[in-house]
Amino acid sequence: MSGAMGDAAATPSARRNPPTRPAPLTPLSPAVIGSDGVFELTAAMVDVASESFDETAFADMIETELRSLEHLEVIRVGDNVVARTNLGRPQRLVLGGHTDTVPANDNFPGRIVAGGSNDGANADDELFGVGSADMKGGLAVMLTSARRHTNPAMDLTYVFYAREEVAALHSGLGELFDTIPEWLVGDVALLGEPTDGQIEAGCQGTMRVAVTLHGDRAHTARAWMGRNAIHRAAPLLAALAAYTPRQPEISGCRFHEALLAVGIEGGVSGNVVPDSVRITIGHRFAPDRTIAQAAEHVRAVVEPFLEAGDTVEVVDAASAAAPATDHPFVAHLVERNDLAVSAKLGWTDVARFAERGIPAANFGPGVALVAHTQGESVLRSSVERTWAALDDLIVTAVDRRGTTLLAKD
Amino acid sequence: MSGAMGDAAATPSARRNPPTRPAPLTPLSPAVIGSDGVFELTAAMVDVASESFDETAFADMIETELRSLEHLEVIRVGDNVVARTNLGRPQRLVLGGHTDTVPANDNFPGRIVAGGSNDGANADDELFGVGSADMKGGLAVMLTSARRHTNPAMDLTYVFYAREEVAALHSGLGELFDTIPEWLVGDVALLGEPTDGQIEAGCQGTMRVAVTLHGDRAHTARAWMGRNAIHRAAPLLAALAAYTPRQPEISGCRFHEALLAVGIEGGVSGNVVPDSVRITIGHRFAPDRTIAQAAEHVRAVVEPFLEAGDTVEVVDAASAAAPATDHPFVAHLVERNDLAVSAKLGWTDVARFAERGIPAANFGPGVALVAHTQGESVLRSSVERTWAALDDLIVTAVDRRGTTLLAKD
Repeated sequence: MSGAMGDAAATPSARRNPPTRPAPLTPLSPAVIGSDGVFELTAAMVDVASESFDETAFADMIETELRSLEHLEVIRVGDNVVARTNLGRPQRLVLGGHTDTVPANDNFPGRIVAGGSNDGANADDELFGVGSADMKGGLAVMLTSARRHTNPAMDLTYVFYAREEVAALHSGLGELFDTIPEWLVGDVALLGEPTDGQIEAGCQGTMRVAVTLHGDRAHTARAWMGRNAIHRAAPLLAALAAYTPRQPEISGCRFHEALLAVGIEGGVSGNVVPDSVRITIGHRFAPDRTIAQAAEHVRAVVEPFLEAGDTVEVVDAASAAAPATDHPFVAHLVERNDLAVSAKLGWTDVARFAERGIPAANFGPGVALVAHTQGESVLRSSVERTWAALDDLIVTAVDRRGTTLLAKD
Repeated sequence: MSGAMGDAAATPSARRNPPTRPAPLTPLSPAVIGSDGVFELTAAMVDVASESFDETAFADMIETELRSLEHLEVIRVGDNVVARTNLGRPQRLVLGGHTDTVPANDNFPGRIVAGGSNDGANADDELFGVGSADMKGGLAVMLTSARRHTNPAMDLTYVFYAREEVAALHSGLGELFDTIPEWLVGDVALLGEPTDGQIEAGCQGTMRVAVTLHGDRAHTARAWMGRNAIHRAAPLLAALAAYTPRQPEISGCRFHEALLAVGIEGGVSGNVVPDSVRITIGHRFAPDRTIAQAAEHVRAVVEPFLEAGDTVEVVDAASAAAPATDHPFVAHLVERNDLAVSAKLGWTDVARFAERGIPAANFGPGVALVAHTQGESVLRSSVERTWAALDDLIVTAVDRRGTTLLAKD
């Protein structure tokens, strides 16, 4: 990437014969330009291992690179690196991406399979390797923007955060919101999760609710003296099986909720009528409901099956995120690139921004379907198309009054 | 019991001030006769701790006592002691009892609360202490018989076995059946479990069956792509809740079966549609069914809810025991003492004899209801009445042709 990153360029042959220490990022040079070399940068990033909790070396490289860019202010917290412009623009766009990958599965380092020459630009070149789609393509787009846009239409914040592929409590993004929330403020956030350069706007909330039904213990030799709590679960499970989830459309996005048993346990021993059963209900809810409203809904569903002494407890919950499609930046991106807009049915980090009042959407190269698989890959065309759309946004973005702020730098 | 057992008699005051080592059994002397001193012997036995797995000292005393009786042949296996007469009688009665108790609960050593003098014989004297009802009263009856009946109507076998109050696999009786089964052979067996001197004839069998229902795993964000195995449990649990157990009457004993869920578990994680659920069904069955027939019945109950790939597995099973009331010894005992006859709904060691073709019944002093409680106790009248009935059986028993074999020795 820059001379500061080291002296050995990671050539394709170097990728096939991995060095014993992480390869330095490929320096951007005019010779590897092709849409600013963002695909080549992706390949170089794939060749730096960054499995969750083992991301320091990769974060070091990103930090060094960002600190070498004089138009950026940089801060580091643990393995997270944040950089931003301070140009006094009326609006700020936050670009975020996680630096970690799932563990490699015989797919490290990366390798490029050359595509056909149908468009003369090798659009079908395919980069295989862990993290190629999820989400070093997105990180390459971010870093390319950080290098190129010294004079953007809006202020820009780049958030490279750690530990997304593990339990939410380990999230580097959560760590940043806890420690330097002021660095994450912006008008809208785009996260580089693989959407193949389309827009996933908003996500469903998620919640687990533990329902405990009680009975009366007895020896099974005199079972009629007890009351079987596991048997009491039958009508509740039947109601969950018959439940029809809502599929609301919100800001042009179709959501699809879920409410189901994800766990059950009960029983004392083989000769005891069980006096309690615990049913864990999983609930995914669309962003037209708050956590409190969603919890109320779950309670209403289970209420007919409860008796005095039974309990309903929200074990954990994460709020949904409304689609960010109404924000001018996102609308602009969609309109100028004719992007597809869909809802994210699972929970993603966009909700961390949304719950702090910052609309957010996923927008990155690569296809989510191949993420975490051994055959994970990303196409050159997907990376370059995503970069081109972001690049266009940053130089043509309009403010809230519809005024184009700056021409391309 | 005998001089060989030690020199310190356990007086009531000695019981209140327990020695640091197990007290010797009370020597039977003419001075404490009252129905052969069987109540006093019970009290002495209560004062020798014999919690499960810690029964060696108690077994030692019993062995020493039995070996001092010249009319008996004695064998010891681990903490089990078996003694028998070899008089060539046409029939053999087996008397069995477990030597262990549950852990004490501030109820060791024992104490005697004197009863009223309504019948001049202190029939209401009440012995409190762990093991008093379950089942040192029964052991005292056995040991008294061993001492007294040098010339019984039938040959007699006394089986003092260890570890009944713990998991069945530890059973000392099971150990004896495994190692010296020829020592346990007889025409009928009476076990001294607390029945307050009445007859519990036969017991129900018991069985656990694991039913595993399958589904298809999916991410809960796309729950409709999966099939929820826990939801599939609903109709099966409803059927179990609605199940009406049989209450067959067999040889004058009313049984009461049970078929119910005793355990359930399912679930992968909070965000996964569960692809399997395991329901453990407990079944108690009357002695008109074999294990195979009972298993077939469980299978028939669950069958309507199974699909290809689901499994039904008998996890463990113990056979039922037919009531021994048809055996002449038991019929004689019932008739001459006007005893109540009932079925044992739980599983007891009588089934270990029954499954080897030896009819067996429970017959001992004390009330089962107080067993394992802090207030466990046994009445003098219960112990003495049980002993008197057994004593009468042994001296007046008839053979299969109705002939009285021997007068009292």
